[in-house]
Amino acid sequence: MGINRTAPRVDVPRGLAGVVVTDTEVGDVRGTEGFYHYRQYSAVELARTRGFEDVWHLLLHGELPGPDRRAAFTAETAALRRLPDEVRAALPAIAAASRTSGPLAGMRTALSLLGAAKGFRPVYDIDAGRRRADALAACAAVPTLLTALYRLGRGLDPVEPREDLSHAADYLYMLTGEEPDPRQARAVEQYLISTIDHGFNASTFTARVIASTGADVAACLTGAVGALSGPLHGGAPSRALDTLDAIGTPDRTDAWIRERVLAGDRIMGFGHPVYRTEDPRSRMLREIALGFGGPRVDLAVQVERQVEAILAELKPGRELHTNVEYYAGVVMELCGLPREMFTPTFAAARVVGWSANILEQAEDSKIIRPVARYVGPQAPAPVPAPVPVPA
Amino acid sequence: MGINRTAPRVDVPRGLAGVVVTDTEVGDVRGTEGFYHYRQYSAVELARTRGFEDVWHLLLHGELPGPDRRAAFTAETAALRRLPDEVRAALPAIAAASRTSGPLAGMRTALSLLGAAKGFRPVYDIDAGRRRADALAACAAVPTLLTALYRLGRGLDPVEPREDLSHAADYLYMLTGEEPDPRQARAVEQYLISTIDHGFNASTFTARVIASTGADVAACLTGAVGALSGPLHGGAPSRALDTLDAIGTPDRTDAWIRERVLAGDRIMGFGHPVYRTEDPRSRMLREIALGFGGPRVDLAVQVERQVEAILAELKPGRELHTNVEYYAGVVMELCGLPREMFTPTFAAARVVGWSANILEQAEDSKIIRPVARYVGPQAPAPVPAPVPVPA
Repeated sequence: MGINRTAPRVDVPRGLAGVVVTDTEVGDVRGTEGFYHYRQYSAVELARTRGFEDVWHLLLHGELPGPDRRAAFTAETAALRRLPDEVRAALPAIAAASRTSGPLAGMRTALSLLGAAKGFRPVYDIDAGRRRADALAACAAVPTLLTALYRLGRGLDPVEPREDLSHAADYLYMLTGEEPDPRQARAVEQYLISTIDHGFNASTFTARVIASTGADVAACLTGAVGALSGPLHGGAPSRALDTLDAIGTPDRTDAWIRERVLAGDRIMGFGHPVYRTEDPRSRMLREIALGFGGPRVDLAVQVERQVEAILAELKPGRELHTNVEYYAGVVMELCGLPREMFTPTFAAARVVGWSANILEQAEDSKIIRPVARYVGPQAPAPVPAPVPVPA
Repeated sequence: MGINRTAPRVDVPRGLAGVVVTDTEVGDVRGTEGFYHYRQYSAVELARTRGFEDVWHLLLHGELPGPDRRAAFTAETAALRRLPDEVRAALPAIAAASRTSGPLAGMRTALSLLGAAKGFRPVYDIDAGRRRADALAACAAVPTLLTALYRLGRGLDPVEPREDLSHAADYLYMLTGEEPDPRQARAVEQYLISTIDHGFNASTFTARVIASTGADVAACLTGAVGALSGPLHGGAPSRALDTLDAIGTPDRTDAWIRERVLAGDRIMGFGHPVYRTEDPRSRMLREIALGFGGPRVDLAVQVERQVEAILAELKPGRELHTNVEYYAGVVMELCGLPREMFTPTFAAARVVGWSANILEQAEDSKIIRPVARYVGPQAPAPVPAPVPVPA
């Protein structure tokens, strides 16, 4: 197993904060500059100028595709949207089971099943091409899984994927059963691109820890979805929209926000642990929202201005701006996505980032395995009063 | 989210080797002493003197139960063996899907589904009692899930759990549909107890990382099963039995082992990254095997002696003894467990250890989130030749 568990103990900050666990070429976030990138390219610039498949290719292969490569990659991924029969057969039961626990539990289960049905193999037992194929198959099928579970949960039949649509447009199509509006499809595509990866968050780390044991791609992704579902993870744009709903009209902003801040509540949709400037994703998504216009967008912009002003007054020096969740919620709502699909949509993009990280980790052969310090009562204590064990 | 991602960078050994990620009261391994413990008690002493339910209670509640508490706990867990209808409905499809990928992929999927069906809630959104109830429900149902998937995969109907049997005996009963031999049930119980926990391995760490986001118990366990399925993780007693099969008869041991060692192969079933002495689990399981006796056990003992002697000669100073996998495989075979169920049986015990770690982690509120160092080409590079994105 190659583990030296007798290595000297190293004390580090709680939660491994700042501890460098790996080198990466996938991307990075520069919080003080308000900048993040995939490979060597600005993620926002990619979202503005490229399609989802281009950026997906960039993440998985390390380079943007030329026109021929793009066509081949698009066709390859589109063909992978269709689900194996065993997965299809299990989806009604998964949808029924996840009715109370929510769509991420359904996605977690369905992705795990998909990997089993497709016969994904341990990443350490296969070559890079086969690993990449497994990662591609998983990412390509996620929109099919998510929309099928969503529709089954509402008593609707799943909609079969259409290979002639882009990944983003097909996602909307499978959700509604209707040809999507091109502007909405493009807005969702830009959101998806902007959220593929964002530094070394807890779900990405989870995917890499599992990959470091050599487990298959579905094992890694299933764990990552699990980590994403944790309330401390972030990535729940619906919460920011709940803020907007609670405020209701711009004139109520001042009283509502002051009350929350004085009560010590966090204002969902504002503030980010990394960015000390505006969140670059927020800026792009605001522009997209403004392109759509309408009273909801007007409210969002007015509330944003007021909240920032109030926060600057009440929490001087904290630089609290809208984070990605705020305008992501607004944009997804404008594109007709139901609120319970906001986080799954986030996850549908993030699987690509996780996959890039898994493939990178699989090139390493070192298991990620820290240690714990035992702080309980001194062992061994004698086992008290051994009683006969029933046969 | 309480993450300070601008914390100073801390460089540590690769794979976080020796990095202390948390304090724990669950247990520990002392490799140089050949000793490991659950809470303050020797794990081997617990396996010798207690039933599985006792030790399960110890892990989850921090103390061994008295007679009344044991009766209540046993009844509580026995009642949780039965599966919800949605889970039952999905099992045939899960069994069909995991036919090629193996039982751990099936277990991963089924555990994920069980958590969804039972409405497990994020650990940070519920109190300790509810968390414990979720953990209990998951652990209690694992034997039912595993045996149902195993039987369905062979065209057999699942066997309903029996509440009057112990956890270990009921596992064998559901596997075969027959009342188990008490000695076999007790041997399996002792194996299960001895493998509940074993220091801070990669699957335990995975469970804790996911728990640190506040995700539900099924999300954590699903990720842990994924990590366990990785070839670098360990926990595959069938590999050691394959060694025994390949040797076949004691007189072939010498030639077979020398050939492997000279080829640089690892001899499965021998050597452990922690123990510098005999593996205490191996010692206990050897005794159990000797209690059964028979030609297979004789072969195992003779091969063990010869291999240790040869390894001592060829790799002096390495202290290579049998590890837990060697006699675990022998014992499970003696108890009638099919070889493909060896690792799932290991996992059926380990869920209890993972659960204890998840519950402990949930008492903390600090996300486990290290960082990665970007080492790719300098960003931002201009995005090349932006082409029009199809609407």
